[in-house]
Amino acid sequence: MVPHLTTSLTGPLQDLERVVLDRRPQIERWFRARFAEHEVPFYSSVDLRNSGFKLAPVDTNLFPGGFNNLNPDFLPLCVHAAMSAIQKLCPDAQRFVLVPENHTRNLFYLQNVATLKRILESAGLAVRIGSLLPDLAGPTTVETAGGERLLLEPLRRHGNRVGLEGFDPCAVIVNNDLSGGVPAILRGLEQTVVPPLIAGWSTRRKSQHFAAYERVAEDFAELVGIDPWFVNPAFSQCRGVDFAQKAGEDYLAATVEQVLAEVREKYAEHGITEPPFVIVKADAGTYGMGIMTAKSVDDVRNLNRKARNKMAVIKEGQTVSEVIVQEGVYTFEDVDGAVAEPVIYMIDQFVVGGFYRVHNARGKDENLNSPGMEFRPLAFETDCQSPDCAGQPGDPPNRFYTYGVVARLANLAAALEIEEMVARAEEPEALAESA
Amino acid sequence: MVPHLTTSLTGPLQDLERVVLDRRPQIERWFRARFAEHEVPFYSSVDLRNSGFKLAPVDTNLFPGGFNNLNPDFLPLCVHAAMSAIQKLCPDAQRFVLVPENHTRNLFYLQNVATLKRILESAGLAVRIGSLLPDLAGPTTVETAGGERLLLEPLRRHGNRVGLEGFDPCAVIVNNDLSGGVPAILRGLEQTVVPPLIAGWSTRRKSQHFAAYERVAEDFAELVGIDPWFVNPAFSQCRGVDFAQKAGEDYLAATVEQVLAEVREKYAEHGITEPPFVIVKADAGTYGMGIMTAKSVDDVRNLNRKARNKMAVIKEGQTVSEVIVQEGVYTFEDVDGAVAEPVIYMIDQFVVGGFYRVHNARGKDENLNSPGMEFRPLAFETDCQSPDCAGQPGDPPNRFYTYGVVARLANLAAALEIEEMVARAEEPEALAESA
Repeated sequence: MVPHLTTSLTGPLQDLERVVLDRRPQIERWFRARFAEHEVPFYSSVDLRNSGFKLAPVDTNLFPGGFNNLNPDFLPLCVHAAMSAIQKLCPDAQRFVLVPENHTRNLFYLQNVATLKRILESAGLAVRIGSLLPDLAGPTTVETAGGERLLLEPLRRHGNRVGLEGFDPCAVIVNNDLSGGVPAILRGLEQTVVPPLIAGWSTRRKSQHFAAYERVAEDFAELVGIDPWFVNPAFSQCRGVDFAQKAGEDYLAATVEQVLAEVREKYAEHGITEPPFVIVKADAGTYGMGIMTAKSVDDVRNLNRKARNKMAVIKEGQTVSEVIVQEGVYTFEDVDGAVAEPVIYMIDQFVVGGFYRVHNARGKDENLNSPGMEFRPLAFETDCQSPDCAGQPGDPPNRFYTYGVVARLANLAAALEIEEMVARAEEPEALAESA
Repeated sequence: MVPHLTTSLTGPLQDLERVVLDRRPQIERWFRARFAEHEVPFYSSVDLRNSGFKLAPVDTNLFPGGFNNLNPDFLPLCVHAAMSAIQKLCPDAQRFVLVPENHTRNLFYLQNVATLKRILESAGLAVRIGSLLPDLAGPTTVETAGGERLLLEPLRRHGNRVGLEGFDPCAVIVNNDLSGGVPAILRGLEQTVVPPLIAGWSTRRKSQHFAAYERVAEDFAELVGIDPWFVNPAFSQCRGVDFAQKAGEDYLAATVEQVLAEVREKYAEHGITEPPFVIVKADAGTYGMGIMTAKSVDDVRNLNRKARNKMAVIKEGQTVSEVIVQEGVYTFEDVDGAVAEPVIYMIDQFVVGGFYRVHNARGKDENLNSPGMEFRPLAFETDCQSPDCAGQPGDPPNRFYTYGVVARLANLAAALEIEEMVARAEEPEALAESA
């Protein structure tokens, strides 16, 4: 079962797929060289949008949930990739503590934690779950959506190490996006922490990711000879917005108009007749909170109270003051009339699988990752590294390979983004030393 | 479908499996450290024997055929592992020429070549087949056992490079065991050649491999706290044998007696009542040629002409003068009454799959890899890296994981063996320089 493209606008995308298939050796060599130069994230997931005329990432998650939604046939791929990641990052490790999100009522998320635990165990590690839940008095067994039992244990600090009762881990794997800031218990640890805490949403900005992505997309487009716009969504950052106080509205409106104009020009250039739209979202947000669609400046002016409140506050009660205005990419993939959005998973430099978020109630220009969103996951039937070059663009293995290539571009952008964040974090010290 | 163990002597092996499962984090860390220190072979396959009381490698192939016998579901594992191997060995490569064996009448072997080609292509390389066949006038299409069409092209030399008409490869992948010596066309190339030519059977010796394996097995046994004999077959080398001229017979008989005595002692120590036996085989041979079984010294004395001829000459007409006398390990795995021998495949440091050679006509103490041998391949149903620790020793995922561990010991031994061969090959130069 593979989604249909419900658009006739497949010309440019089939061209892209053809180019990607034909230039595979150059593309793979290019990735090998880039991933040798930059430290690739331990794991990531990338939300893609496929409009038939454009294929682009719209979100890159460095603390990915949803491993439970992958095709179980490809878990061995996850295991091998995890072995490779561990070999690079902490070859000496034997014991990992996995620090998950605190939302224990989401049984699907717990299933993700159980799946991650199994992957890491199969890679040869002893793995236990260290919870940040403030009211977890002692080891507590919870049941996952799949009916598995999972033991959550309170994470404890001893000097510069964290651990569990009777368990001193060599490394800490974070599966918590740190939206509420980096908890004191995780700061300044002597243990290896992956991903680095600076990649959490208290310091990370979508606009920095997409700025890095833009450079990666330009290099890639030059390599394969395409217009980078086919894989790169236009965007602009907008600071000083206060939805609750209705502040910064003019600036936001001007930014929306600027991005819309840019998209309009590209649509005209490539003969695309759909109406352009943008997505306005919190620059430091995740979980589909603080997100809205705008097809014109009017859509962001004179928001009613409900709409403003929806934009004002995101996960962990954080107030939104910086937003990113990003070109909206239509979702023209469709399963039985329901909109389907592909999500690609990576561990180390390897694409380990993907699935579609299939959602009946939403439109092709809306965000599919929303609070309380009920989607039906549809695991990819094939892996993303076995294109059938004798086949046609659009054949599932070829479509998935192309998805994997674009997702790896986003993964590479994340590597650059983290490097830059680390460099910036070290800057004041460097200045102080030179003073 | 998984073979039954047709022996009640499963005590020691189930203990081994239990130990391997329990100490997985230490074992995997140990492998990570070893494979970081030594250059792991590009690919290999290892023939194992499982006697219920002992699990040991009996042959390690550095130019493995038989990739066509693996479970196609796990080809993505091969692809990821190949990507990892290429990243290490020749990250800059885009075009590989694959140099196969010359036996084009073996349609199953051709299917192996087609499968290897597909794996390397999926890893993102442009791959063509460069044949050493002396009578191949031009590009020739052959059909494989699976009905695929495969283009063989004559390999051509230009200065210090090899290539095909209109194809200048970055690297040469050898799938030819070089039993007849290293062909002039492959010597002194400026291109990367994997595996190194020194790993071919004109320079390689089984006794050197098993000497390296013995050291690896001892380290491993110390790590997990077992008698190394459970994973290590006793052996001794014997030079100056000439089966055709009946020379060296006394020396061979003494060696056989020595190894048999060693095994007898171990059998007594562990309460094993089966009669010990040894395998006598060409030290530089493969393809199951030049191999015989001996349960006593009498079996190697007074060989008749037919038996002597069978031992005297192996693949490519090479004369046998060095043999290895190796402890025979019973094959107590059985599928529908037929003897089954596991073969494990590795690319880079990853176990990518395995299959059983199932053979009706042979005994549990005979070699299953023989010329003209007709076996039925039975692909492993699960991968070798997903043990079920809640399950029992002997459950297929656990048995296969243990097979993968022992196969990786052999792979590590091959890494040491190649290092030592390279060091020895460089010795005369080092001496000349210091003189």
